[in-house]
Amino acid sequence: MMIRPRGLVVMMLWSVIAWGSPAALTEEIRQVIMKQQDAWNRGDLEAFMAGYWNSPELTFFSGARESKGWQAALDRYKKSYQGAGQQMGKLEFANLRIKMLGPEAAFVRGEFHLTMSDGKTPHGLFTLIFRRFPEGWRIVHDQSAGE
Amino acid sequence: MMIRPRGLVVMMLWSVIAWGSPAALTEEIRQVIMKQQDAWNRGDLEAFMAGYWNSPELTFFSGARESKGWQAALDRYKKSYQGAGQQMGKLEFANLRIKMLGPEAAFVRGEFHLTMSDGKTPHGLFTLIFRRFPEGWRIVHDQSAGE
Repeated sequence: MMIRPRGLVVMMLWSVIAWGSPAALTEEIRQVIMKQQDAWNRGDLEAFMAGYWNSPELTFFSGARESKGWQAALDRYKKSYQGAGQQMGKLEFANLRIKMLGPEAAFVRGEFHLTMSDGKTPHGLFTLIFRRFPEGWRIVHDQSAGE
Repeated sequence: MMIRPRGLVVMMLWSVIAWGSPAALTEEIRQVIMKQQDAWNRGDLEAFMAGYWNSPELTFFSGARESKGWQAALDRYKKSYQGAGQQMGKLEFANLRIKMLGPEAAFVRGEFHLTMSDGKTPHGLFTLIFRRFPEGWRIVHDQSAGE
């Protein structure tokens, strides 16, 4: 493959950044995810959703189902976890692997574990794509699968 | 959030790149995916797997199951699709959305559709993370879910 001169300059610069500050950047992303976990565990779905890009372009792949948009996601979470007879359970994220993909993008692999009051423990895997916005790091795409 | 001066320079440069060449880069990625589809449909799993990072660090999330490594993935595909009584079916990728995340990273959302000789049509969604290596664009992580 041809490497374009412009691309080469950016790659070299990005290499400098990559060696200089990924620990600080991954820590910023980890904080967003931990805030989501805390928000979930105090039943605050709006604060949980603050980790996601507030845009109609936000996408969720849940199992083989695709959905789109921040507001629709919040509504769905409210219906599934705060509707009559529903409970949110205690959420724990585990085995988080945060990888920078550039100075303003990253992806995260991890596991979710819910513990419900009846002893059930739904759990599964997710892939998150993060972008850096002026307001901070936000998830722009989430694929999750549970069992 | 504080924007670090170094980060700002890279972001400005990346913005120039982003406006200049994403069409060429996304086309390179689309070619990798289309080669995989063609390889699958002629029953060549090694060529199909050439789209993936040949590393023990390659990860697959399939449903709520995690697996790791290029060779293990090839072995699994051979067992699942070329074992006794198995068939590969005809594969079509659809609704591909390729998004650059920097000069050397991208993510892809899409659907897979298989058509088997008995008329069954397993299908589902996937998220792919691509990195640019000296040898070209390769998938470093794949989360897929079917029904």
